[in-house]
Formats: sequence, structure tokens, C-alpha cells
Amino acid sequence: MSILRGNAIVGQSGGPTAAINATLAGVIWGAMHSENIGRVYGMKNGIDGLLADTVIELDGYFPDEDAYEVLKRTPAAALGSCRKKLPTEGDAKYKQTFEKIIEQFKKYDIKYFFYIGGNDSMDTVAKLSKYTKECGYEVRIIGVPKTIDNDLLGTDHTPGFGSAAKYISVTMQEILRDTAVYTVKAVTIVEIMGRDAGWLTASSEVGRLVGLPSPDLVYLPERAFDMDEFFQDLKKLLSEKPNIVVAVSEGLQFADGRFVGESTQGGAVDAFGHKYLAGTAKALELAVKDKLGVKVRSIELNLPQRCAAHIASKCDIEESFSVGKAAITAAEQGVSREMMVILRDNNEGEPYSSVYGHMDIDLIANRTKFVPKHYINERGNHVTDECLRYILPLIEGESYPEYKNGLPVFFEF
Amino acid sequence: MSILRGNAIVGQSGGPTAAINATLAGVIWGAMHSENIGRVYGMKNGIDGLLADTVIELDGYFPDEDAYEVLKRTPAAALGSCRKKLPTEGDAKYKQTFEKIIEQFKKYDIKYFFYIGGNDSMDTVAKLSKYTKECGYEVRIIGVPKTIDNDLLGTDHTPGFGSAAKYISVTMQEILRDTAVYTVKAVTIVEIMGRDAGWLTASSEVGRLVGLPSPDLVYLPERAFDMDEFFQDLKKLLSEKPNIVVAVSEGLQFADGRFVGESTQGGAVDAFGHKYLAGTAKALELAVKDKLGVKVRSIELNLPQRCAAHIASKCDIEESFSVGKAAITAAEQGVSREMMVILRDNNEGEPYSSVYGHMDIDLIANRTKFVPKHYINERGNHVTDECLRYILPLIEGESYPEYKNGLPVFFEF
Repeated sequence: MSILRGNAIVGQSGGPTAAINATLAGVIWGAMHSENIGRVYGMKNGIDGLLADTVIELDGYFPDEDAYEVLKRTPAAALGSCRKKLPTEGDAKYKQTFEKIIEQFKKYDIKYFFYIGGNDSMDTVAKLSKYTKECGYEVRIIGVPKTIDNDLLGTDHTPGFGSAAKYISVTMQEILRDTAVYTVKAVTIVEIMGRDAGWLTASSEVGRLVGLPSPDLVYLPERAFDMDEFFQDLKKLLSEKPNIVVAVSEGLQFADGRFVGESTQGGAVDAFGHKYLAGTAKALELAVKDKLGVKVRSIELNLPQRCAAHIASKCDIEESFSVGKAAITAAEQGVSREMMVILRDNNEGEPYSSVYGHMDIDLIANRTKFVPKHYINERGNHVTDECLRYILPLIEGESYPEYKNGLPVFFEF
Repeated sequence: MSILRGNAIVGQSGGPTAAINATLAGVIWGAMHSENIGRVYGMKNGIDGLLADTVIELDGYFPDEDAYEVLKRTPAAALGSCRKKLPTEGDAKYKQTFEKIIEQFKKYDIKYFFYIGGNDSMDTVAKLSKYTKECGYEVRIIGVPKTIDNDLLGTDHTPGFGSAAKYISVTMQEILRDTAVYTVKAVTIVEIMGRDAGWLTASSEVGRLVGLPSPDLVYLPERAFDMDEFFQDLKKLLSEKPNIVVAVSEGLQFADGRFVGESTQGGAVDAFGHKYLAGTAKALELAVKDKLGVKVRSIELNLPQRCAAHIASKCDIEESFSVGKAAITAAEQGVSREMMVILRDNNEGEPYSSVYGHMDIDLIANRTKFVPKHYINERGNHVTDECLRYILPLIEGESYPEYKNGLPVFFEF
């Protein structure tokens, strides 16, 4: 292992989460306390900011430990984000883009590059790793995962998932209470984020594992949605009790690949003939109203799922911070062109604990970790206890922001 | 003042809130600690439960003070709710219904009747007050207000409003953070509850008063919505910065009385020709997409506004509890056929405080307290500082439930 001295730069990319700033705080904390790293820079709006030279010095923002605590509890990407896909070899702007990046690296004497993001962001890390290796620029590049969707390979779970799952499972407990107060037959359909993977929808059922109320039907995008079976199940449930709560993934599809949210009852159009993408829950609301004539309400949990820092998972926030710190340690030890991962200590009967590792970025980028088959019941309308046992420790503990004047105190760069 | 000895019964009615159980806890606490009240009963599902004789003894559920604390932090109506409108004199079932109620009163020796609810529930209290007075049955009847909408007359604000306003204003801070991470031009439209009164939508702007981010445009149902002015304002804002956040009341109407959520761009219909009630934010999303071609997202905050006990206002929860206790004290002192109210101590420069009073129910039932004209700016696209100064103390402090296994602990009857 060779010692590498120079400056570090960190950026955030992709959709916000309630925990991505905890990871940023961890990276900055680690860099500030490193003997090998000099200045610590931040790219505004991810790789876009590096290219556009909207680069800021972060050192002055952290005079004490309290500043890290505020950043840890701040939702969304404090440095800003982007959805940039770097060009591939052969693309027109390939050479120009990467030469500009190297030029920027030289300008700021960057020897450590940390990129916090999801699937698409790991693609950026992979491409930059490849280019710098080929051109021989010495820099240690590490991807630090974040995504509420929990769909990255190689890591037991993703930083950000636990907090989204916490918000969803807590809100589901409240919705189950709310919808239970009347005796009139009613169906409530709750739409949860996740276009490809159903991890977040699965988390809405976690109350069942500990004897609390839970949704009556739960549908994940990993299984083709069958409208007839749905109506059968719904009718049976309505004959047994008045209030039925259904959890559905936004990415739910029929066997033929059509999205449930796209059509269902023939596809509503607006006055201009535009196809109306109603959303999965709204489409099912219309379908149930038509078919069963009962009172139906749809609820799309929407953005708060990824930014509700007011009820984050303590486990998630602490792990997100720690994996950021671990990225610095790994880079100092010579690790490069890898993504940090969280590994679960799986000792039967012992309390949950985790350790941090790293993996070849090429094995991870542009792939999706789905909810495995054995985590979904045979009928495809619930997840299994094993799935819930996997999720439960990740929502343990409550992380709250500080409040002033009744409103949360968030970090500002 | 004459001493009246007998049993008490309490019920909950109308839509759930995060604070209605705090009031229930206050009524039960007061009744349990009263020298004049013997047994304490609860009606399941409000007045419906009294008529159907689903009446339970509450005494056993409160062995210690902790039980009240859990109930205080539990959302939705723990006794269940109903939307029953009692018959009016002249209606077919008038005599039969009220005779049955008196019969039930006699069966349980009810001398104290407490009804926690909103506008419609105060109608029940008013009718029951009138009937018992006319028939000479001695009972003290008190309505205790609750509604997230804050639209009851006579009271400075309603129990339940502060917690909904807290959830909305905190979530708005998070949404403002979330939507600010990208540099691509985008409009986010947030739909907030309130069909007639815009109090909750107004609360989304409260951050502005204390120097925090706040929505760029805010529209209340008290003012006719002008689509042209909206587009003018939006275009101007988009020329100045990339991310625009708009807060709209669900009850927003055009000058001709049509709901914005009903039509806007001509009224989408589904495949069966059913009119598609998209919701206000969704309708505006389509309109903006058509007209300006920018990225638009709509968010309906939906049910969590009224049941998010996980981030309730401490001020609201404590007041809701206290007004329940105050109802018992008032009834013991001979007050009857009145609704409890909260009065604000309005001493310039002093911290917020409140006291509890009561008012003639007939002055309150079936009326609506709107956001006054001078609380809305001239252009009709913001609320004034005075409005925000009224709201700010009501969201002060955080009330959190206890958690076990990462999930909130709620009360069960």
C-alpha cells in the first residue's frame, strides 16, 4: 500500500434521500481527519459541477462536530444533484468530457474522488475509473451507494433505504388507524415508490412481524399483476371486514408488460387527447370503483418517501455516516475503482450488526437487485416473514432533526 | 350551580386527526378524577354506537398515567368515528331516534355527554341539546371541537389544526429541499387539504416568517383562482430561478364556481366516460405541462395530513388534552349545550398562551370560519405575515409517539 497525498472532492448524484447527507457528512468528516488528504472540495450538482467548475471548499463549513450532526439530519442532496450520464467511448463528446475532468483534477490537485449516488451514479464512477486508469492519472475513486430503492447489487442494503422504509412503515401504521375508524365498507390503495424493485412496498407490511396491523394486500413489481385475482381477493376480504388497505408498487405491471398505472380501464385521456398517466393507485382506484362500487381512496406517498428527514431510521443515518467515513479509510489504504458496501453480520439469535466493505464497481453498475422470489408468497399478494425479518432491523431507532420555531433546522452550504 | 351526579359518556365523530385522541384522553382523565362522575363510558363509532348499543366501559383501560400518554400520541379516533347526521324535527325518524338516545341515557344513567368532533358533529350536539332541553331530561352536553381544517367559529383555532399544520409545514420544508437539488427547470405543485377554508394551505408558507424557504406561490379557496394570472406569475418565476414550488388548496375554485380539480383542461374521462376527478394539483400539473412544457410534478399530501402522529405539534397535543379536561370542569360547574373554545392571550410581545372557554353551540354549528381577506395578499398568491404570525405558535414543539421495534406504539381499546 502506497501513501497518496493530495486533495479530495466529493459529489452527490441521482434522486435525493433522507440519508445521502449523512454519507456526505461521513466522507467530509473522514477527509477532514485524514493525514493524507489536504483540502476537501465539493462539486455542486455532481459531475456537472466539476465540469462547470462550480466547486466549493468545504473546510470552513465544519468548525465543530455539531455541524456534522446538522448535515446528517438534513434531507436531499446538500451539494445539489444531477442526472448526468457520462459519454461512452466512441461518443462524440467522450474525449472532451474526460479531458476536462482530468484538467479539473489537476487544477484542484485531486487525488481522492468520492461519488455518492445510486445505480446511474455508479456508472459515472465506473467510467471515470476506466478512463483514469487508461490515461494513467493517479486518483483513488470510490462510489458510495445511496438509494431509497435498495436495488443495488453487492451490498446487503443501500444507505437511504432504511429511512424511506421507516417513513413508509410508520405512515402505513397511521393510515391503517385512520382508515379503520368508520364502519362503511371502503378500500384504500397506497402507492409506494419503486419502479423495478419492490423493497419499499414490502416494508409497508413490516408491522405484521411484530403483531401490529398491516396492509391486507401487498403487490410488488417483481410479480405480474393479475386484475382478476386482485378482485377475487378484495371481494373475499370485503365480505369479512369493512376496511381494506392495499399497498402497491408504482412499477406494478401486468403479465404483458403494460404498467398498471398506464391504463387499467382503457387509459383516460385529457381534453387534448394526451394519455393520462394516472399512477398505479389511481388506476386501481378507478377499476375498483367500477367493478365493486365501494368507497375507494388512493394515496400516493410521493416525494416525502425520499426526503422525510423528520422521521428517519437511526440505524440508516448512523450506517450512512459510517459508510462515508469507511470510504475515506478504504481510499487511504489504497482501494480505488470500487463501491462501498454494507455487509450484515448474520448470526442467528444475535442482534443486528453490520460491517463495511467494498466491491468492484463493474460488478455493480447498471444492474438491479430485485426482491427474491422466496420473499414473496405464492399468491403474490404478500411478502414473507423472512423478507420482513430482513427489513425490520433497518428501520430501528428514530433520527430526528433539531427544531427551531417549530420547524426543522437543516444544513446550508 | 347545582351538583349533578351520574355517569359520563364520550364519543368521537367526523374525520380523524392526530390530536382527537389527546382530547379523548383529557375528557377521560377529567371524568376519572371527578367526584361527581361515576362510571365513564365510550360510544364506539360516535352517536351510531350509542344507538346501536356498542358502548364500552373505559375505566379499566387506564390503570396509570402512562396509558393517557399513549392515547394522547395515538392518531385517528381510538373509539371509532361516524358521519351520522341526526334527523331534524319533522323528519320521519326524528322521534324514534331521540327517544332511543334518551332510553340509552337512562340505561347507563348518563348525566354527562361529551362529543368530540368538527362542524357536523356540533350539529349533533346542537340537536341533542335542543331535544333534551325540550323533553326535560337532565344531562349536561358539551361539544369539544376537533378538525384539522381550523374552520370552526368561536374558537381561536381548533384542536387538531396545529398538528396538521406542523406536518404540512415540516413536509413542505423537506419538499423545498428535495426539489432544489436539480438545475433543470421544474414546477412542483403540492395539494393541501381544505375544501372551504385555506388555513392548512396557509400553514405551508410559515417558514417564510422565520427566514426559511417557502413555496413560491400559495393559493387558498377563499380567493377565486385565475389561471391566466397563475401562468403569468409562473413564467416570471421560471425566468428567475429553476425550481418553483406551488401550494394549492384542494378546494380551489375558479370565479365561476367550478372546482379547479374538476376540469381545468376540459375534464379528463376514463374509458367508461366517467368524469375523472383528478384533484387540484393533478389538474394544474396537466395545465402547466400543456402551456409551459416544463417538467411538472404534483404531490397530494393526502391522509397523512390528518393522521401523522409521528410529527405532531406539542402545543396542539397539550391544548387538545387540556381542552378535554376543561370540558369536564365546565360540565361539573353546570355548563351545558355549549362547545368548548380556545382563546388566545394576545399580549403584544409576550409569548403565546391560551385559555379555555365555552360558547353557545347554536352560534357555532353549521358555520365556517374562513381565512379573512386581510390574511391574503392583494395578488391572491400568498398569505400575509399577520396570517403566519397567527399560525406559527400553533406548530411549536414536537410531540413524538413512543417506538418499539422501530414502529410507533399506539393505544387500543
